[in-house]
Amino acid sequence: MRKKEVTFKEISEYTGFSKTTVSRYFNDPDSLTLENQQKIADALEVLGYKENKVARMLASGKTEFIGVIVPNLFLNYYSEILNKLLSTYEKYGYKFLVFAGNEQPETERKYISELLAYKIEGMIILSHTISSEELASYGVPVVSIEREDKYICSVNSDNFNGGEQAAQMLSDCGCDVLIHINSDVPPEIPAHKRITGFKEFCRQNNIANEVLLVDWSGVFSENVVKTEETINYLDEKYPDKRKGIFLSNDNTAANFLNCLVRKHSCLPDDYRMVGFDNSSVSAEAIIPISTIEQQIDKIAGEAMEILVMQMNEQKKRRPVPLKEPVHKIVPTVAIPRDTTKNREITKQK
Amino acid sequence: MRKKEVTFKEISEYTGFSKTTVSRYFNDPDSLTLENQQKIADALEVLGYKENKVARMLASGKTEFIGVIVPNLFLNYYSEILNKLLSTYEKYGYKFLVFAGNEQPETERKYISELLAYKIEGMIILSHTISSEELASYGVPVVSIEREDKYICSVNSDNFNGGEQAAQMLSDCGCDVLIHINSDVPPEIPAHKRITGFKEFCRQNNIANEVLLVDWSGVFSENVVKTEETINYLDEKYPDKRKGIFLSNDNTAANFLNCLVRKHSCLPDDYRMVGFDNSSVSAEAIIPISTIEQQIDKIAGEAMEILVMQMNEQKKRRPVPLKEPVHKIVPTVAIPRDTTKNREITKQK
Repeated sequence: MRKKEVTFKEISEYTGFSKTTVSRYFNDPDSLTLENQQKIADALEVLGYKENKVARMLASGKTEFIGVIVPNLFLNYYSEILNKLLSTYEKYGYKFLVFAGNEQPETERKYISELLAYKIEGMIILSHTISSEELASYGVPVVSIEREDKYICSVNSDNFNGGEQAAQMLSDCGCDVLIHINSDVPPEIPAHKRITGFKEFCRQNNIANEVLLVDWSGVFSENVVKTEETINYLDEKYPDKRKGIFLSNDNTAANFLNCLVRKHSCLPDDYRMVGFDNSSVSAEAIIPISTIEQQIDKIAGEAMEILVMQMNEQKKRRPVPLKEPVHKIVPTVAIPRDTTKNREITKQK
Repeated sequence: MRKKEVTFKEISEYTGFSKTTVSRYFNDPDSLTLENQQKIADALEVLGYKENKVARMLASGKTEFIGVIVPNLFLNYYSEILNKLLSTYEKYGYKFLVFAGNEQPETERKYISELLAYKIEGMIILSHTISSEELASYGVPVVSIEREDKYICSVNSDNFNGGEQAAQMLSDCGCDVLIHINSDVPPEIPAHKRITGFKEFCRQNNIANEVLLVDWSGVFSENVVKTEETINYLDEKYPDKRKGIFLSNDNTAANFLNCLVRKHSCLPDDYRMVGFDNSSVSAEAIIPISTIEQQIDKIAGEAMEILVMQMNEQKKRRPVPLKEPVHKIVPTVAIPRDTTKNREITKQK
């Protein structure tokens, strides 16, 4: 059922050009006149030529492949970013070789070394497994998203301002004390700036605050228990205060909200909440959750732009590598929903 | 920083073998003695040879690429299946070129034709865009998951039994009338059998039932309105009956549950619910939702097994194509949680 393979000999016989000329059409088309290029293109059409990209790849070094490494696809943030990256196919024509790393450095290294053997043109890295220093040493254009990025180009959200925006939203709806719940993110990870932005806002505005670093598990039911314990702790420590809770992502926020509603049959009036990401879980929660949007469209778009720019440079006869990695910051957007409203937002008992 | 490219000439000089022998090592290693293979392998190590897979691909026709086409990655079912497919890299070594189709047949055809030009070895198709007849005509091994599959191999859940299991769970907790909420799935789509399985169970057990086909939107807020209308309809039509609701997926089920809880401040005693998929949303809902598990691990595993079997056949000198497409059915598993329990499952007013 496959179209037959057409040989250079047949194309040569059909067009009257020498086989050398036909070969030049594939490997260096601009060495032929436009007219002759068109004649060969027409002949290919008639002969039912089926392009063998592997042969072209070998000749040109342009594979049109980009490797993407994500930690996993069960967190909405990663699958949503990947969705946006894949959708750039229509714009750029690059094809994506996707790998879910699961934090196993050896498997990830083996995969990357295969990608390099396949002459991929560039990589987009969301996993945290391999240091940016090592990634830079592979000699292929790389852009990272929201991970340690000292030696490679990156696109990150404005996490610092995001932390400030979250604190601002909670402060605006009259919270007495602001609580930020996060995990122990190391300072070199961009998301760490959510903590510093939150703290800085509280310091400048003289608002009582507390940062709780929780050791989240990969098992959901364990995180429910940890969240219930956190709520009991907050209820006891701040019984008469309105508590503004800023959670480091929307999945954690949805879980926190569910635990609160299970305990109190509603979101009690002494709680306000803000998540982070604007993943679908925040809008689809039992009470729509206010959040800080990461502009995933823009992040994916900027990552591709920086990568394409580097990949195009690599195709020049004398590529000039970047002197310094480019670090692009994408603004976050405050999305107010029901968990920061000052009214009775669920039926009370 | 890249390792230098090592030429056949250098390998030949280092080992004392002719360039022809070196070439045979790469393209037909078994034509050399094991001892000579080892000598060349050792030399490659010493010379820092970096495999150029593109050249090997061209020589062997084995690209180790599989194309995967999903409709999108925002529905948990698709991102979870993709996650499992990608994780087979460690077992089989195949790399996945992933495309999110967004139901645009022309873009999807263009993408597939590129994949074929890159000599991918096989495809796994979850999108519904292109008919199985057309996919079969491409002459490359294909396995589909949960879509029309008349002319191609496929792996699907036992949707019929899944529909029966859902009705059984609802019947077991004392429901008077069973309602199945789905969209208007055409009969050639495997998921249609959820409807027929549900109906067959009700018929055999003489249980009052109704199938509601809803025209779901891509916009979540519109689906909230449609769900609220459905609940009002059910409350009015069956005021004194215990209603057992079977929803066609867990995302829809979570939305239905949220709408019920918003209206009644709890899951009222005259409602029981079962979803479908066992996606994370069901376990993480405000009240953990009973569901019918699609065994995503097994589905992905079986799809790869059938595909690898076909791809291996293609590598033989005289491949024998399958006489008939293989259609594999994976059992579903009933997962009882709180929405089918017969007790007070949330605090009542």
